[in-house]
Amino acid sequence: MAGGDAKKSNASGGGKKKEVKKETGLGLANRKDENFGEWYSEVVVNGEMIEYYDISGCYILRPWAMAIWEIMQKFFDAEIKKMDIQNCYFPLFVSPGVLQKEKDHVEGFAPEVAWVTKSGESELEVPIAIRPTSETVIHPTPFIRSREFLWQEGHTAFATKAEADAEVLDILELYRRIYEEYLAIPVVKGKKSEMEKFAGGLYTTSVEAFVPNTGRGIQGATSHCLGQNFAKMFEINFENEKGEKGMVWQNSWAYSTRTIGVMVMVHGDDRGLVLPPKVASVQVIVIPVPYKDADTQAIFDACSATVASLSEAGIRAKADSRDNYSPGWKYSHWEMKGVPLRIEIGPKDLANSQVRAVRRDNSAKTDIPRDKLVEQVKEMLDNIQQSLFDAAKQKRDACIQTVKTWDEFVEALGQRKMILAPWCDEEEVEKEVKARTKGEMGACKSLCSPFDQPELLEGTKCFASGKPAKKWTYWGRSY
Amino acid sequence: MAGGDAKKSNASGGGKKKEVKKETGLGLANRKDENFGEWYSEVVVNGEMIEYYDISGCYILRPWAMAIWEIMQKFFDAEIKKMDIQNCYFPLFVSPGVLQKEKDHVEGFAPEVAWVTKSGESELEVPIAIRPTSETVIHPTPFIRSREFLWQEGHTAFATKAEADAEVLDILELYRRIYEEYLAIPVVKGKKSEMEKFAGGLYTTSVEAFVPNTGRGIQGATSHCLGQNFAKMFEINFENEKGEKGMVWQNSWAYSTRTIGVMVMVHGDDRGLVLPPKVASVQVIVIPVPYKDADTQAIFDACSATVASLSEAGIRAKADSRDNYSPGWKYSHWEMKGVPLRIEIGPKDLANSQVRAVRRDNSAKTDIPRDKLVEQVKEMLDNIQQSLFDAAKQKRDACIQTVKTWDEFVEALGQRKMILAPWCDEEEVEKEVKARTKGEMGACKSLCSPFDQPELLEGTKCFASGKPAKKWTYWGRSY
Repeated sequence: MAGGDAKKSNASGGGKKKEVKKETGLGLANRKDENFGEWYSEVVVNGEMIEYYDISGCYILRPWAMAIWEIMQKFFDAEIKKMDIQNCYFPLFVSPGVLQKEKDHVEGFAPEVAWVTKSGESELEVPIAIRPTSETVIHPTPFIRSREFLWQEGHTAFATKAEADAEVLDILELYRRIYEEYLAIPVVKGKKSEMEKFAGGLYTTSVEAFVPNTGRGIQGATSHCLGQNFAKMFEINFENEKGEKGMVWQNSWAYSTRTIGVMVMVHGDDRGLVLPPKVASVQVIVIPVPYKDADTQAIFDACSATVASLSEAGIRAKADSRDNYSPGWKYSHWEMKGVPLRIEIGPKDLANSQVRAVRRDNSAKTDIPRDKLVEQVKEMLDNIQQSLFDAAKQKRDACIQTVKTWDEFVEALGQRKMILAPWCDEEEVEKEVKARTKGEMGACKSLCSPFDQPELLEGTKCFASGKPAKKWTYWGRSY
Repeated sequence: MAGGDAKKSNASGGGKKKEVKKETGLGLANRKDENFGEWYSEVVVNGEMIEYYDISGCYILRPWAMAIWEIMQKFFDAEIKKMDIQNCYFPLFVSPGVLQKEKDHVEGFAPEVAWVTKSGESELEVPIAIRPTSETVIHPTPFIRSREFLWQEGHTAFATKAEADAEVLDILELYRRIYEEYLAIPVVKGKKSEMEKFAGGLYTTSVEAFVPNTGRGIQGATSHCLGQNFAKMFEINFENEKGEKGMVWQNSWAYSTRTIGVMVMVHGDDRGLVLPPKVASVQVIVIPVPYKDADTQAIFDACSATVASLSEAGIRAKADSRDNYSPGWKYSHWEMKGVPLRIEIGPKDLANSQVRAVRRDNSAKTDIPRDKLVEQVKEMLDNIQQSLFDAAKQKRDACIQTVKTWDEFVEALGQRKMILAPWCDEEEVEKEVKARTKGEMGACKSLCSPFDQPELLEGTKCFASGKPAKKWTYWGRSY
């Protein structure tokens, strides 16, 4: 988190929210394929994930978003505890001395460090910094670029490099599972280039996602091996069981609420959010559909009974039994919030001992007999989870373009592709690629060299330098 | 959290830690009954709960403390979710405009608000505040008074006062359970005086704990009914199911990592921390006790098997199988960290198919046959939990003194009692009591009027004003 231009933000933050409300009512004024940026700003507000705030780049995370974060947190926390990793809490404030000591590693953050210089009315003798991040204050985007975000940050130390190396990949695999199994977003596992790795570390691995609508890659999470750099700097030694001294090998790894932004961007549509069942705090919304002479009480009772059966089976279900909103209003409301499955119960359903289920992702309608309720809903939720992943993967794969020459590369970049190219792996060449692709849209950089490497035929040349290629690497514009 | 005198803190924070280390090695240099303040500072460091930090009043919460917080968090979070309460996240930063709007309610905090005025090298046009608390910067104490702490903060809204009133008490009961069932600390439930209630609210209820060694009360947690004050100020309205408009009734409630400090103060002894089993992240530590010719491998295997059996039964157990420390060193180490039960396995235990269990709270030793392991350990942990509570309650009750006159009151205060006195319930009288008891130790104030009121005989006079008494109220010095 970091300080910045507060004046500007008052205008953009507060203003945007009112604007959106006036224009749209319950629906969305912007379309995902036409006006992606505006669509995103609108869907995170109308889907009740965030609320704008009077400081630019700060957002209130509403329960609908917080629940998703909590579900991922619960999964990840349980997994790292199995690995004997423990949690702790570090203060918000950092003294200038400590910040100076880590100078090399915070250089990138320096322009945006927030400094506390006053306590009440009195000036502090020595200012205090707030733990910095390098998230920009210029173009804040909820979840993606904000002054402040929630994250999980891991630090571990090992006696040997081999142990550290193994853990880097174990953690990366957990991050892959968060994206692919929970958020239904395909990612590429790979290694960062020397230029893109964490400055103070030995090497950086990451999972890389892609947003087809903007043609931008997005670093999903990183798992770093820091080597022994910090151990040398801070003298972090250990004594082994034979009483010998050694210097530790360290790792660090993190993922943040950015995950939620990627999920909104990848799955959302023109009717609002689309939540994968595994992270949806409400997986099934049950809506009574009363009709003139029908037995309204019996319909409401059937809704309650449906929620009870589903809840008992471990499915997160709720009924919307408010009687000051029409069923149609409720359909739109819960579609906007992205609930994976809607169940409607009307007089006809009651008479036939069935419920009607409507999928959020593809609008498919199915009548489910009451005595098959739990079984079929479970199946449908699994199916939705898989469909979302498959659809996202298909879209992502269609954006991947393999190129071999600079001309092909430039053409693919113009088409907003995620580009796989043979590369000589030289820092100077990456700098040149950045310089040559600079423009309104932002420069192109290397995303990662995938662990899963296609065959590199002998004699293959680097797409940018013409020198012998050493590996296949993904390139693209990114968040 | 709030800014303050950073220079002073560099000296007191960093300095204290080193001093402690030099003096003591593994044990404690200070005794709880002789030098309570120093004992506390030492035990939270040597027990590996906190690490001092180079900014005064900021502490690193190490895994040993964090695990306790997480256990309480898990309990509380599950309970409030049952009540349909949802979590959200509010930004760290607050704009001066918003802070001004809430002026009346933050007046007490104003002298200690931390202001961010610089971003990197540039001055902000409008400074940004960090969400304030009124924790002092003058005499910081880990967990009890710190610049920054972790807490749970609840906000709810209801259509009617009756619903709000009921929830205030439901939440207060959860707080009582955290103190009594988890932390094994007796508390009094009651209502705060007009002077001590939350400024912006209608009334405040609290659970009040007491630290016999210092003779100070400590507000354990608060559950407030805010009435409709904020609803009027911010126009928080709702529409009921008949379409009528109404103004909400609001509650707010919180408890913080202060809980952990009270636990340390109440249960800790001259050998270090004493953790109640329900919040101990390690409930049983298993220590191999090899001996000359004995089969060391068999002893280590028996330790692993013991941990496996206990873990499988849901008991949080660990073995300390490091072979560069002696068994004696390990005993002291885990006693310092307050693990409720130690299991030792030596050659004789191995031969007799038994383990030796040693309780942290009373040092009692018991030999447990291997085939009764889980059953007896479970029983012992329950027993320790209950014993800690009973002992704490006995000590606390011995500190409660009922008085009827000012002279009796002054005498009891001198003896550091928690004083129950008949009171006229007038604000002016409470102010006078404060003024008349001011001194080196700090003034005495009302703690709460217990819900569980002793009979108030007709004609009973207020201990301070001589006017007719309206209720029994607890008084004392407090944290």
